[in-house]
Amino acid sequence: MPQALVVLSGGQDSTTCLYWALNRWGAESVATVTFDYGQRHRVELDCARQVAELAGVPNHVLPIDTLRVLGGSALTDDRIGVQTVLNPVTHLPNTFVPGRNLIFLTYAAAYAYQRGIRDLVTGVAQTDYSGYPDCREDTIKLLQETLRLGMESEFTIYTPLMSKTKAETVLMARDLGALDAMAYTHTCYSGHQPPCGECPACQLRAKGFAEAGIEDPLVLRLRGAA
Amino acid sequence: MPQALVVLSGGQDSTTCLYWALNRWGAESVATVTFDYGQRHRVELDCARQVAELAGVPNHVLPIDTLRVLGGSALTDDRIGVQTVLNPVTHLPNTFVPGRNLIFLTYAAAYAYQRGIRDLVTGVAQTDYSGYPDCREDTIKLLQETLRLGMESEFTIYTPLMSKTKAETVLMARDLGALDAMAYTHTCYSGHQPPCGECPACQLRAKGFAEAGIEDPLVLRLRGAA
Repeated sequence: MPQALVVLSGGQDSTTCLYWALNRWGAESVATVTFDYGQRHRVELDCARQVAELAGVPNHVLPIDTLRVLGGSALTDDRIGVQTVLNPVTHLPNTFVPGRNLIFLTYAAAYAYQRGIRDLVTGVAQTDYSGYPDCREDTIKLLQETLRLGMESEFTIYTPLMSKTKAETVLMARDLGALDAMAYTHTCYSGHQPPCGECPACQLRAKGFAEAGIEDPLVLRLRGAA
Repeated sequence: MPQALVVLSGGQDSTTCLYWALNRWGAESVATVTFDYGQRHRVELDCARQVAELAGVPNHVLPIDTLRVLGGSALTDDRIGVQTVLNPVTHLPNTFVPGRNLIFLTYAAAYAYQRGIRDLVTGVAQTDYSGYPDCREDTIKLLQETLRLGMESEFTIYTPLMSKTKAETVLMARDLGALDAMAYTHTCYSGHQPPCGECPACQLRAKGFAEAGIEDPLVLRLRGAA
Protein backbone atom coordinates (compact mmCIF):
# COMPACT_ATOMS: atom_id res chain seq x y z
CA MET A 1 0.00 0.00 0.00
CA PRO A 2 1.38 3.42 -0.94
CA GLN A 3 1.99 5.79 1.92
CA ALA A 4 3.21 8.76 -0.10
CA LEU A 5 1.67 10.55 -3.06
CA VAL A 6 3.77 12.62 -5.46
CA VAL A 7 2.10 15.29 -7.58
CA LEU A 8 3.76 14.48 -10.91
CA SER A 9 3.41 16.95 -13.75
CA GLY A 10 5.82 15.23 -16.10
CA GLY A 11 8.32 18.06 -15.69
CA GLN A 12 11.83 18.19 -14.35
CA ASP A 13 11.00 19.28 -10.80
CA SER A 14 8.21 16.83 -10.02
CA THR A 15 10.27 14.01 -11.52
CA THR A 16 13.12 14.88 -9.19
CA CYS A 17 10.63 14.86 -6.32
CA LEU A 18 9.41 11.42 -7.36
CA TYR A 19 12.94 10.08 -7.06
CA TRP A 20 13.34 11.87 -3.75
CA ALA A 21 10.24 9.99 -2.58
CA LEU A 22 11.49 6.66 -3.98
CA ASN A 23 14.71 7.17 -2.07
CA ARG A 24 12.86 7.96 1.14
CA TRP A 25 10.03 5.41 1.12
CA GLY A 26 10.81 2.85 -1.61
CA ALA A 27 8.90 2.26 -4.84
CA GLU A 28 6.27 0.00 -3.27
CA SER A 29 5.22 2.84 -0.95
CA VAL A 30 4.94 5.62 -3.53
CA ALA A 31 2.11 6.54 -5.91
CA THR A 32 1.76 9.50 -8.26
CA VAL A 33 -1.12 11.68 -9.35
CA THR A 34 -1.16 13.80 -12.49
CA PHE A 35 -3.75 16.46 -13.30
CA ASP A 36 -5.29 16.69 -16.73
CA TYR A 37 -6.45 20.31 -16.48
CA GLY A 38 -6.51 21.30 -20.10
CA GLN A 39 -2.84 22.24 -20.18
CA ARG A 40 -1.85 23.37 -23.63
CA HIS A 41 0.70 20.59 -23.79
CA ARG A 42 -0.89 17.21 -23.44
CA VAL A 43 2.55 15.77 -24.04
CA GLU A 44 3.04 16.44 -20.29
CA LEU A 45 0.57 13.66 -19.51
CA ASP A 46 2.57 11.20 -21.62
CA CYS A 47 5.76 12.33 -19.93
CA ALA A 48 4.26 11.76 -16.48
CA ARG A 49 3.11 8.30 -17.49
CA GLN A 50 6.52 7.39 -18.92
CA VAL A 51 8.38 8.71 -15.89
CA ALA A 52 6.10 6.79 -13.49
CA GLU A 53 6.51 3.64 -15.56
CA LEU A 54 10.28 3.99 -15.52
CA ALA A 55 10.19 4.51 -11.76
CA GLY A 56 7.87 1.52 -11.31
CA VAL A 57 5.10 3.40 -9.49
CA PRO A 58 1.39 3.80 -10.28
CA ASN A 59 0.24 6.98 -12.01
CA HIS A 60 -3.34 8.12 -11.64
CA VAL A 61 -4.67 10.90 -13.86
CA LEU A 62 -7.34 13.16 -12.38
CA PRO A 63 -9.28 15.44 -14.72
CA ILE A 64 -9.86 19.10 -13.79
CA ASP A 65 -12.12 20.91 -16.21
CA THR A 66 -12.65 23.91 -13.91
CA LEU A 67 -9.29 25.58 -14.53
CA ARG A 68 -9.92 25.68 -18.25
CA VAL A 69 -13.22 27.43 -17.63
CA LEU A 70 -11.76 29.79 -15.02
CA GLY A 71 -8.76 30.52 -17.18
CA GLY A 72 -10.74 30.61 -20.36
CA SER A 73 -11.64 34.27 -20.29
CA ALA A 74 -9.11 34.78 -23.06
CA LEU A 75 -11.09 32.35 -25.18
CA THR A 76 -14.53 33.72 -24.48
CA ASP A 77 -14.02 37.40 -23.70
CA ASP A 78 -12.97 39.30 -26.81
CA ARG A 79 -11.90 42.29 -24.73
CA ILE A 80 -8.99 40.13 -23.64
CA GLY A 81 -8.19 38.16 -26.76
CA VAL A 82 -6.21 34.98 -27.03
CA GLN A 83 -2.50 35.51 -26.47
CA THR A 84 -0.32 33.34 -28.58
CA VAL A 85 2.71 34.74 -26.77
CA LEU A 86 3.31 34.63 -23.05
CA ASN A 87 2.82 37.49 -20.68
CA PRO A 88 6.27 39.16 -20.65
CA VAL A 89 6.13 39.81 -16.91
CA THR A 90 4.78 36.51 -15.59
CA HIS A 91 5.89 34.30 -18.49
CA LEU A 92 2.45 32.71 -18.17
CA PRO A 93 -0.29 32.31 -20.72
CA ASN A 94 -3.24 34.51 -19.82
CA THR A 95 -5.19 31.35 -19.12
CA PHE A 96 -3.33 31.11 -15.81
CA VAL A 97 -5.58 30.68 -12.77
CA PRO A 98 -4.53 32.08 -9.39
CA GLY A 99 -4.20 29.51 -6.64
CA ARG A 100 -3.76 26.63 -9.04
CA ASN A 101 -1.34 24.85 -6.72
CA LEU A 102 -3.80 25.16 -3.85
CA ILE A 103 -6.31 23.31 -6.02
CA PHE A 104 -3.80 20.65 -7.05
CA LEU A 105 -2.72 19.97 -3.47
CA THR A 106 -6.27 19.94 -2.12
CA TYR A 107 -7.29 17.38 -4.72
CA ALA A 108 -4.12 15.39 -4.02
CA ALA A 109 -5.04 15.41 -0.33
CA ALA A 110 -8.60 14.23 -1.05
CA TYR A 111 -7.26 11.45 -3.27
CA ALA A 112 -4.69 10.54 -0.60
CA TYR A 113 -7.28 10.62 2.17
CA GLN A 114 -9.38 8.01 0.39
CA ARG A 115 -6.37 5.69 0.27
CA GLY A 116 -5.03 6.22 3.76
CA ILE A 117 -2.04 8.16 2.42
CA ARG A 118 -0.79 11.00 4.62
CA ASP A 119 2.45 12.12 2.95
CA LEU A 120 2.18 14.43 -0.05
CA VAL A 121 5.13 15.55 -2.16
CA THR A 122 5.18 18.52 -4.53
CA GLY A 123 7.93 20.10 -6.61
CA VAL A 124 7.04 23.72 -5.97
CA ALA A 125 9.97 26.04 -5.37
CA GLN A 126 10.21 29.64 -4.30
CA THR A 127 13.57 30.13 -5.96
CA ASP A 128 14.06 30.78 -9.68
CA TYR A 129 10.36 31.56 -10.02
CA SER A 130 9.17 34.82 -8.60
CA GLY A 131 5.51 35.30 -9.37
CA TYR A 132 3.68 32.36 -7.82
CA PRO A 133 2.48 33.14 -4.29
CA ASP A 134 0.94 29.67 -4.00
CA CYS A 135 4.40 28.09 -4.39
CA ARG A 136 5.91 29.85 -1.39
CA GLU A 137 6.84 27.99 1.75
CA ASP A 138 4.57 29.99 4.04
CA THR A 139 1.57 29.36 1.77
CA ILE A 140 2.26 25.63 1.60
CA LYS A 141 2.63 25.45 5.39
CA LEU A 142 -0.71 27.20 5.89
CA LEU A 143 -2.36 24.97 3.31
CA GLN A 144 -1.01 21.94 5.14
CA GLU A 145 -2.69 23.13 8.34
CA THR A 146 -5.92 23.86 6.47
CA LEU A 147 -5.96 20.38 4.91
CA ARG A 148 -5.21 18.76 8.27
CA LEU A 149 -8.09 20.55 9.90
CA GLY A 150 -10.49 20.40 6.95
CA MET A 151 -10.08 16.66 6.42
CA GLU A 152 -9.18 15.72 10.00
CA SER A 153 -6.08 13.96 8.80
CA GLU A 154 -2.41 14.41 9.63
CA PHE A 155 -1.15 15.31 6.19
CA THR A 156 2.43 16.39 5.66
CA ILE A 157 3.29 18.28 2.49
CA TYR A 158 6.92 17.73 1.53
CA THR A 159 8.58 20.30 -0.74
CA PRO A 160 12.09 18.95 -1.34
CA LEU A 161 12.91 21.67 -3.88
CA MET A 162 11.49 24.66 -2.02
CA SER A 163 14.74 26.55 -1.59
CA LYS A 164 16.85 25.01 -4.34
CA THR A 165 18.07 26.67 -7.51
CA LYS A 166 17.62 24.86 -10.81
CA ALA A 167 21.29 23.86 -10.75
CA GLU A 168 20.92 22.42 -7.26
CA THR A 169 17.84 20.50 -8.41
CA VAL A 170 19.84 19.02 -11.30
CA LEU A 171 22.58 17.90 -8.91
CA MET A 172 19.96 16.45 -6.61
CA ALA A 173 18.39 14.57 -9.52
CA ARG A 174 21.80 13.12 -10.37
CA ASP A 175 22.42 12.02 -6.78
CA LEU A 176 18.98 10.40 -6.61
CA GLY A 177 19.48 8.47 -9.86
CA ALA A 178 16.78 10.47 -11.63
CA LEU A 179 18.77 11.43 -14.73
CA ASP A 180 17.49 8.50 -16.83
CA ALA A 181 13.93 9.59 -16.10
CA MET A 182 14.87 13.21 -16.83
CA ALA A 183 15.24 12.20 -20.48
CA TYR A 184 11.44 11.82 -20.64
CA THR A 185 10.41 15.00 -18.86
CA HIS A 186 8.77 17.97 -20.48
CA THR A 187 9.56 21.61 -19.83
CA CYS A 188 9.03 23.68 -22.98
CA TYR A 189 6.19 26.22 -22.88
CA SER A 190 5.57 25.82 -26.60
CA GLY A 191 4.62 22.17 -26.24
CA HIS A 192 7.18 21.26 -28.90
CA GLN A 193 8.85 17.87 -28.81
CA PRO A 194 11.78 18.34 -29.23
CA PRO A 195 11.64 21.48 -27.08
CA CYS A 196 12.01 24.87 -28.73
CA GLY A 197 15.08 25.77 -26.67
CA GLU A 198 14.11 29.43 -26.73
CA CYS A 199 11.16 29.95 -24.39
CA PRO A 200 11.83 31.03 -20.79
CA ALA A 201 11.19 27.50 -19.50
CA CYS A 202 13.65 25.93 -21.93
CA GLN A 203 16.25 28.57 -21.11
CA LEU A 204 15.82 28.10 -17.37
CA ARG A 205 16.23 24.37 -17.78
CA ALA A 206 19.33 24.75 -19.97
CA LYS A 207 20.84 27.22 -17.50
CA GLY A 208 20.26 24.78 -14.62
CA PHE A 209 22.00 21.91 -16.39
CA ALA A 210 24.81 24.18 -17.59
CA GLU A 211 25.47 25.51 -14.08
CA ALA A 212 25.41 21.99 -12.69
CA GLY A 213 27.90 20.90 -15.35
CA ILE A 214 25.66 18.07 -16.50
CA GLU A 215 24.33 17.43 -19.98
CA ASP A 216 20.54 17.39 -20.13
CA PRO A 217 19.49 13.74 -20.64
CA LEU A 218 16.55 14.94 -22.73
CA VAL A 219 18.92 16.72 -25.11
CA LEU A 220 21.13 13.63 -25.24
CA ARG A 221 18.19 11.37 -25.95
CA LEU A 222 16.84 13.56 -28.71
CA ARG A 223 20.31 13.93 -30.24
CA GLY A 224 20.65 10.15 -30.20
CA ALA A 225 17.27 9.77 -31.87
CA ALA A 226 18.08 12.36 -34.54
CA MET B 1 -19.23 45.90 -10.42
CA PRO B 2 -19.89 43.17 -7.85
CA GLN B 3 -17.78 43.32 -4.72
CA ALA B 4 -19.14 40.20 -3.03
CA LEU B 5 -19.52 36.65 -4.30
CA VAL B 6 -22.01 34.23 -2.73
CA VAL B 7 -21.50 30.49 -3.17
CA LEU B 8 -25.08 29.55 -4.05
CA SER B 9 -26.03 25.88 -4.05
CA GLY B 10 -29.73 26.40 -4.54
CA GLY B 11 -30.42 25.22 -1.00
CA GLN B 12 -31.96 26.89 2.00
CA ASP B 13 -28.73 27.99 3.68
CA SER B 14 -26.95 29.53 0.72
CA THR B 15 -30.15 31.30 -0.30
CA THR B 16 -30.37 32.84 3.17
CA CYS B 17 -26.74 33.91 2.78
CA LEU B 18 -27.52 35.52 -0.56
CA TYR B 19 -30.17 37.67 1.09
CA TRP B 20 -27.76 38.45 3.91
CA ALA B 21 -25.34 39.71 1.24
CA LEU B 22 -28.08 41.70 -0.55
CA ASN B 23 -28.91 43.35 2.73
CA ARG B 24 -25.28 44.19 3.42
CA TRP B 25 -24.02 45.30 -0.01
CA GLY B 26 -27.09 45.79 -2.24
CA ALA B 27 -28.05 43.74 -5.32
CA GLU B 28 -25.81 45.68 -7.71
CA SER B 29 -22.76 44.67 -5.66
CA VAL B 30 -23.48 40.96 -5.33
CA ALA B 31 -22.81 38.05 -7.71
CA THR B 32 -23.30 34.33 -7.20
CA VAL B 33 -21.41 31.24 -8.27
CA THR B 34 -22.87 27.74 -8.42
CA PHE B 35 -20.85 24.55 -8.88
CA ASP B 36 -21.97 21.87 -11.28
CA TYR B 37 -20.00 19.00 -9.76
CA GLY B 38 -22.09 16.05 -10.80
CA GLN B 39 -24.42 16.32 -7.84
CA ARG B 40 -27.09 13.66 -8.01
CA HIS B 41 -29.73 16.34 -8.10
CA ARG B 42 -29.32 18.63 -11.03
CA VAL B 43 -32.53 20.31 -9.91
CA GLU B 44 -30.21 22.21 -7.52
CA LEU B 45 -28.75 24.08 -10.47
CA ASP B 46 -32.21 25.18 -11.59
CA CYS B 47 -33.01 26.24 -8.04
CA ALA B 48 -29.85 28.34 -7.84
CA ARG B 49 -30.66 30.00 -11.14
CA GLN B 50 -34.24 30.74 -10.07
CA VAL B 51 -33.17 32.11 -6.70
CA ALA B 52 -30.54 34.36 -8.28
CA GLU B 53 -33.06 35.58 -10.83
CA LEU B 54 -35.57 36.38 -8.13
CA ALA B 55 -32.89 38.24 -6.20
CA GLY B 56 -31.78 40.11 -9.32
CA VAL B 57 -28.13 39.05 -9.21
CA PRO B 58 -25.96 37.26 -11.77
CA ASN B 59 -25.41 33.52 -11.39
CA HIS B 60 -22.35 31.91 -12.91
CA VAL B 61 -22.12 28.12 -13.09
CA LEU B 62 -18.65 26.58 -12.83
CA PRO B 63 -18.20 22.92 -13.78
CA ILE B 64 -16.17 20.59 -11.54
CA ASP B 65 -15.68 17.14 -13.00
CA THR B 66 -12.97 16.15 -10.52
CA LEU B 67 -15.27 15.46 -7.57
CA ARG B 68 -17.27 12.95 -9.58
CA VAL B 69 -14.07 11.10 -10.43
CA LEU B 70 -12.71 11.33 -6.87
CA GLY B 71 -16.03 10.32 -5.40
CA GLY B 72 -16.74 7.77 -8.06
CA SER B 73 -15.10 4.83 -6.34
CA ALA B 74 -18.56 3.51 -5.58
CA LEU B 75 -19.25 3.48 -9.29
CA THR B 76 -16.03 1.88 -10.40
CA ASP B 77 -14.89 -0.26 -7.48
CA ASP B 78 -17.18 -3.25 -7.02
CA ARG B 79 -15.75 -3.92 -3.58
CA ILE B 80 -17.59 -0.81 -2.49
CA GLY B 81 -20.77 -0.98 -4.50
CA VAL B 82 -23.18 1.81 -5.25
CA GLN B 83 -25.25 2.75 -2.24
CA THR B 84 -28.79 3.68 -3.04
CA VAL B 85 -29.30 4.57 0.60
CA LEU B 86 -27.24 7.05 2.59
CA ASN B 87 -24.50 6.18 4.99
CA PRO B 88 -26.39 5.88 8.32
CA VAL B 89 -23.61 7.62 10.25
CA THR B 90 -22.72 10.48 7.96
CA HIS B 91 -26.05 10.73 6.08
CA LEU B 92 -23.89 11.16 3.00
CA PRO B 93 -23.80 9.18 -0.21
CA ASN B 94 -20.54 7.27 -0.47
CA THR B 95 -19.61 9.50 -3.36
CA PHE B 96 -18.77 12.19 -0.82
CA VAL B 97 -15.30 13.73 -1.25
CA PRO B 98 -13.41 15.03 1.79
CA GLY B 99 -12.54 18.70 1.68
CA ARG B 100 -15.22 19.52 -0.84
CA ASN B 101 -15.87 22.91 0.72
CA LEU B 102 -12.17 23.74 0.57
CA ILE B 103 -12.35 23.13 -3.18
CA PHE B 104 -15.53 25.19 -3.58
CA LEU B 105 -14.11 28.16 -1.70
CA THR B 106 -10.74 28.02 -3.45
CA TYR B 107 -12.46 28.07 -6.82
CA ALA B 108 -14.75 30.85 -5.62
CA ALA B 109 -11.67 32.82 -4.58
CA ALA B 110 -9.98 32.28 -7.96
CA TYR B 111 -13.14 33.40 -9.74
CA ALA B 112 -13.45 36.39 -7.41
CA TYR B 113 -9.78 37.30 -7.84
CA GLN B 114 -10.19 37.59 -11.59
CA ARG B 115 -13.03 40.06 -11.06
CA GLY B 116 -11.52 42.15 -8.30
CA ILE B 117 -13.98 40.72 -5.75
CA ARG B 118 -12.60 40.28 -2.23
CA ASP B 119 -15.66 39.32 -0.15
CA LEU B 120 -16.82 35.70 -0.28
CA VAL B 121 -19.97 34.39 1.40
CA THR B 122 -20.74 30.76 2.18
CA GLY B 123 -23.59 29.08 4.03
CA VAL B 124 -21.54 26.51 5.91
CA ALA B 125 -22.56 25.94 9.51
CA GLN B 126 -21.02 23.96 12.32
CA THR B 127 -24.31 23.51 14.11
CA ASP B 128 -26.93 20.91 13.15
CA TYR B 129 -24.35 19.09 11.05
CA SER B 130 -21.68 17.17 12.86
CA GLY B 131 -19.49 15.35 10.39
CA TYR B 132 -18.02 18.01 8.10
CA PRO B 133 -14.65 19.23 9.35
CA ASP B 134 -14.34 21.56 6.37
CA CYS B 135 -17.45 23.48 7.51
CA ARG B 136 -16.05 24.39 10.91
CA GLU B 137 -15.15 27.93 11.81
CA ASP B 138 -11.49 27.19 12.54
CA THR B 139 -11.07 25.47 9.17
CA ILE B 140 -12.68 28.35 7.29
CA LYS B 141 -10.50 30.87 9.12
CA LEU B 142 -7.35 28.96 8.19
CA LEU B 143 -8.52 28.60 4.60
CA GLN B 144 -9.09 32.35 4.47
CA GLU B 145 -5.47 32.93 5.52
CA THR B 146 -4.25 30.37 2.98
CA LEU B 147 -6.20 32.01 0.16
CA ARG B 148 -4.95 35.46 1.18
CA LEU B 149 -1.37 34.31 1.09
CA GLY B 150 -1.69 31.97 -1.90
CA MET B 151 -3.36 34.56 -4.14
CA GLU B 152 -1.88 37.67 -2.50
CA SER B 153 -5.33 39.12 -2.07
CA GLU B 154 -7.22 40.31 1.00
CA PHE B 155 -10.14 37.90 0.83
CA THR B 156 -12.68 37.76 3.61
CA ILE B 157 -14.84 34.66 3.90
CA TYR B 158 -18.16 35.49 5.55
CA THR B 159 -20.12 32.66 7.18
CA PRO B 160 -23.35 34.27 8.43
CA LEU B 161 -24.86 30.92 9.49
CA MET B 162 -21.81 29.42 11.17
CA SER B 163 -23.27 29.14 14.65
CA LYS B 164 -26.99 29.22 13.90
CA THR B 165 -29.47 26.39 14.29
CA LYS B 166 -31.83 25.62 11.44
CA ALA B 167 -34.64 27.41 13.27
CA GLU B 168 -32.47 30.49 13.72
CA THR B 169 -31.61 30.39 10.02
CA VAL B 170 -35.33 30.30 9.16
CA LEU B 171 -35.98 33.33 11.36
CA MET B 172 -33.02 35.10 9.78
CA ALA B 173 -34.36 34.30 6.30
CA ARG B 174 -37.70 35.81 7.30
CA ASP B 175 -36.07 38.97 8.67
CA LEU B 176 -34.02 39.35 5.49
CA GLY B 177 -37.04 38.96 3.20
CA ALA B 178 -35.77 35.65 1.83
CA LEU B 179 -38.94 33.61 2.35
CA ASP B 180 -40.23 34.19 -1.20
CA ALA B 181 -36.97 32.83 -2.59
CA MET B 182 -37.12 29.94 -0.11
CA ALA B 183 -40.06 28.59 -2.10
CA TYR B 184 -37.61 27.75 -4.92
CA THR B 185 -34.82 26.16 -2.88
CA HIS B 186 -33.92 22.51 -2.90
CA THR B 187 -33.05 20.40 0.12
CA CYS B 188 -34.20 16.79 -0.40
CA TYR B 189 -31.43 14.16 -0.69
CA SER B 190 -33.57 12.04 -3.01
CA GLY B 191 -33.67 14.73 -5.67
CA HIS B 192 -37.46 14.51 -5.73
CA GLN B 193 -39.49 17.56 -6.63
CA PRO B 194 -41.72 17.77 -4.60
CA PRO B 195 -39.34 16.69 -1.83
CA CYS B 196 -39.75 13.24 -0.27
CA GLY B 197 -40.29 14.65 3.24
CA GLU B 198 -38.63 11.62 4.75
CA CYS B 199 -34.87 11.82 4.17
CA PRO B 200 -32.67 13.38 6.88
CA ALA B 201 -32.34 16.63 4.90
CA CYS B 202 -36.11 17.01 4.49
CA GLN B 203 -36.66 16.24 8.17
CA LEU B 204 -34.00 18.72 9.27
CA ARG B 205 -35.58 21.39 7.09
CA ALA B 206 -39.10 20.62 8.40
CA LYS B 207 -37.84 20.70 11.98
CA GLY B 208 -36.22 24.09 11.43
CA PHE B 209 -39.39 25.65 10.05
CA ALA B 210 -41.53 24.01 12.74
CA GLU B 211 -39.31 25.30 15.55
CA ALA B 212 -39.31 28.76 14.01
CA GLY B 213 -43.11 28.65 13.82
CA ILE B 214 -43.07 29.46 10.10
CA GLU B 215 -44.63 27.48 7.29
CA ASP B 216 -42.09 26.39 4.69
CA PRO B 217 -42.71 28.51 1.57
CA LEU B 218 -41.69 25.54 -0.59
CA VAL B 219 -44.44 23.42 0.98
CA LEU B 220 -46.93 26.26 0.53
CA ARG B 221 -45.95 26.73 -3.11
CA LEU B 222 -46.24 23.04 -3.90
CA ARG B 223 -49.56 22.81 -2.06
CA GLY B 224 -50.81 25.74 -4.11
CA ALA B 225 -49.68 24.06 -7.31
CA ALA B 226 -51.28 20.73 -6.39
